[in-house]
Amino acid sequence: MKTLIATLLLSSSLLCLAQPQASEADLNKFYTPELLAQLPQVQQAALHSNYALQQLDHLTNNIGPRAAGSPQAQAAVEYVAGELRRLGLQVKLEKVMVPHWVRGLETAELVQYPGQARGTHQRLVLTALGNSAATPSDGITADVLVVSSFHELNRLGADNVRGKIVLFNVPFDEREAEMGLAGEAYGTVSRYRGGGGVAAARLGAVGALVRAAGGADFRIAHTGYSAPAGIPSASITAEDAELVARLSKEGPVRMHLTLTPATYPDVESYNVVADLKGSEHPEQVVIVSGHLDSWDLGTGAIDDAAGVAIAMETANVIQQLKLHPKRTLRVVAWMDEELRGSGHDAYFKDHQADIANHVAAIESDSGAGHPAGFQTAIPPEAAPLLRPIQDVLRAQGAAAMRPGHTGSDIAPLSKAGVPTFGLMQDTRHYFDYHHTAADTFDKVDPSELAENAAAMATLAWALCNTDQPLPRAK
Amino acid sequence: MKTLIATLLLSSSLLCLAQPQASEADLNKFYTPELLAQLPQVQQAALHSNYALQQLDHLTNNIGPRAAGSPQAQAAVEYVAGELRRLGLQVKLEKVMVPHWVRGLETAELVQYPGQARGTHQRLVLTALGNSAATPSDGITADVLVVSSFHELNRLGADNVRGKIVLFNVPFDEREAEMGLAGEAYGTVSRYRGGGGVAAARLGAVGALVRAAGGADFRIAHTGYSAPAGIPSASITAEDAELVARLSKEGPVRMHLTLTPATYPDVESYNVVADLKGSEHPEQVVIVSGHLDSWDLGTGAIDDAAGVAIAMETANVIQQLKLHPKRTLRVVAWMDEELRGSGHDAYFKDHQADIANHVAAIESDSGAGHPAGFQTAIPPEAAPLLRPIQDVLRAQGAAAMRPGHTGSDIAPLSKAGVPTFGLMQDTRHYFDYHHTAADTFDKVDPSELAENAAAMATLAWALCNTDQPLPRAK
Repeated sequence: MKTLIATLLLSSSLLCLAQPQASEADLNKFYTPELLAQLPQVQQAALHSNYALQQLDHLTNNIGPRAAGSPQAQAAVEYVAGELRRLGLQVKLEKVMVPHWVRGLETAELVQYPGQARGTHQRLVLTALGNSAATPSDGITADVLVVSSFHELNRLGADNVRGKIVLFNVPFDEREAEMGLAGEAYGTVSRYRGGGGVAAARLGAVGALVRAAGGADFRIAHTGYSAPAGIPSASITAEDAELVARLSKEGPVRMHLTLTPATYPDVESYNVVADLKGSEHPEQVVIVSGHLDSWDLGTGAIDDAAGVAIAMETANVIQQLKLHPKRTLRVVAWMDEELRGSGHDAYFKDHQADIANHVAAIESDSGAGHPAGFQTAIPPEAAPLLRPIQDVLRAQGAAAMRPGHTGSDIAPLSKAGVPTFGLMQDTRHYFDYHHTAADTFDKVDPSELAENAAAMATLAWALCNTDQPLPRAK
Repeated sequence: MKTLIATLLLSSSLLCLAQPQASEADLNKFYTPELLAQLPQVQQAALHSNYALQQLDHLTNNIGPRAAGSPQAQAAVEYVAGELRRLGLQVKLEKVMVPHWVRGLETAELVQYPGQARGTHQRLVLTALGNSAATPSDGITADVLVVSSFHELNRLGADNVRGKIVLFNVPFDEREAEMGLAGEAYGTVSRYRGGGGVAAARLGAVGALVRAAGGADFRIAHTGYSAPAGIPSASITAEDAELVARLSKEGPVRMHLTLTPATYPDVESYNVVADLKGSEHPEQVVIVSGHLDSWDLGTGAIDDAAGVAIAMETANVIQQLKLHPKRTLRVVAWMDEELRGSGHDAYFKDHQADIANHVAAIESDSGAGHPAGFQTAIPPEAAPLLRPIQDVLRAQGAAAMRPGHTGSDIAPLSKAGVPTFGLMQDTRHYFDYHHTAADTFDKVDPSELAENAAAMATLAWALCNTDQPLPRAK
């Protein structure tokens, strides 16, 4: 094992040494002196603008939660379209059929458990997962089976699972998140949130509960996507998962569970697609984007009104500075990132013939914490061409360019070879609030929001105006 | 002003210099060598026992929330009485008539506000305050008036307040709490929680909301006592208070509020009073205590199953070590600290003839964080007699003895001249969880719980066995 690690470390060092270098001559051709002078202007304008904050304020406080298919989501589409028109962009609402899942009542009580006081029950705190099926209106009552992994569930098998409510008691590792590995910590637990229901239903379970897929210790549940499983599925708080697990060690625990969400027919909704046309290559497109839908519990500030506001700020500062991009800058406010990804799927399908003209796409969908730079999905030969951009971003501590996940809405473009970038925010506490009722306006620091806007605007302005597009993956 | 502060500082320095000293001879008479040898034994036994933790576990996880008048409160009375009997104490259940207020449905929506999306409303997160009156079952609808103080409310007067729902938007100062002034921070906001309803009702308001009287930023409301005001009263989360205040600056905000708590006739309940009889002065009593009731949202771990468990541990270690106190050690698990204080009122009334024989009382009711020592209400000449106890407690970082509030259940005794002590816990984050659904078992650190038990047991053992009782206030 140690040998393997040493080999890997050595290989990655060699990779670094071996990565393609761009000559000064290459870079001088790629970036005109005029462009190099504009980059810090764009950056500074965004750092000192409060336009993004105003957009965030309106989307979260005045409009509120924006679940796909809801009237608030529609209001947000109209608001963002109107704002971008006002900025002078050419705005299209591109149709998307989105799922329409609506939360209902959600209660759970332990009705039988070791040491129970006569005539009492204990109320739990939980929230239905997206796509959860409903219980009858008077709920279901079943024994709870606590497992700590898919492996344990499958080992127990249908004989032990049938008729039970399965609780996947897999904790979110807050220390891992604090260390800067929030994505990894989230990945571990979101597998259970996404797939727990299906795995439990396959073995005959009548309900599935997952321990909150996120941090914090304030008895709050984290909703989110779950694959349709045909059984009621909910996120239960860390505290309640601990309680049930603890009592289960002493004897049988029986739960009464009521969830009454409803799944309605798909609803017509829209991606907002707004162009600032390029002067030399109007057909070539650089996307800046965030997603407009949110979960329904909070007001979706960090997930992801912030991303939409950051992308809108890019257009705003360019217009304020009266700059004219050579390529088309396209602001996209994606619809339905959360439940089915229907927005980015529709975009990719509708623009299929034109993907070759997408020269880059940027997304912000990890909150609004201090950005260290971008995660990138670009071919190796493109990386050295970013150096002058990094030199500008370094002044705000955002020079990192590291291969990684760039955003789920731009993933189809990325897969098709389009160079993509995702803002690399400080996410050490992102998953404390993610998909909870506490994802609200106050969770965004105005200065950090502006830092994100500045990083996105700087990168986007560069990519709109370099001599050639970045090389794309074959 | 500055002169006044300087004078006060000077006076308090002089007071320190002038405080009475105990001679070695005095102390040698007060503490036998045997007693001095026993103190660290008691301390160490408590530090290494997990008995308190087991009690906390049962009270919170198996029994759960223990609101006064509830079946769980009764179950807790029976459980604690049984445990203390098992330890060999003489247990009495002393009757108390307690209030019986039961939470109902609680919802609130903004139904009209600036920038509202057509056909939508925004759901708020709130929880009724103890003693809140109910709305009709279909709620009330009224404009919200946001004020930042009683002064502002009164300045606005009945003409502006009549028919409104008043929101007292006074933030809990988390920085003040972090600095070790949690009590001060809580004092500021709990005035509004306790008295906001009455002040608003007096001017014709139809409802009263107070911003959460506690820290944390996870959209959780903090319940608690409010003086009966005859109008619905609730705690609204910090985030929702911010939202309403923000929208109110732009234009009128209208709210639909439904609270359906019920106030039932008083219920017979009990203080658990358990004696380990003194060998030399059985009539003289040293009380160790916490309160057994809790709020109904969480499982009342830090408030105050921990306090009861800590007091029970004192009896447990003394019995484990087969020690015999000279004075009577009395464990009291108080009922109804939270809503009316009926438990300590009944005790004081029933034991009126015997108060002179109460030589000391100790309470733990500020959670289970690391104890720095005790707050004291003792006459100046008693302080130097505590030095040998402080010398033992210093080893666990709990040597402080500082005049201050010692606990609401022992306040009547304190007022009557009985020397009282309250564990001085680290409360920097106590009010993040206090009176919320997140006050659960996992919030207590087992080592810190044992530290508290050790401090209480050491002090109690000393006070049971000194040559003379501590001097009492005249």
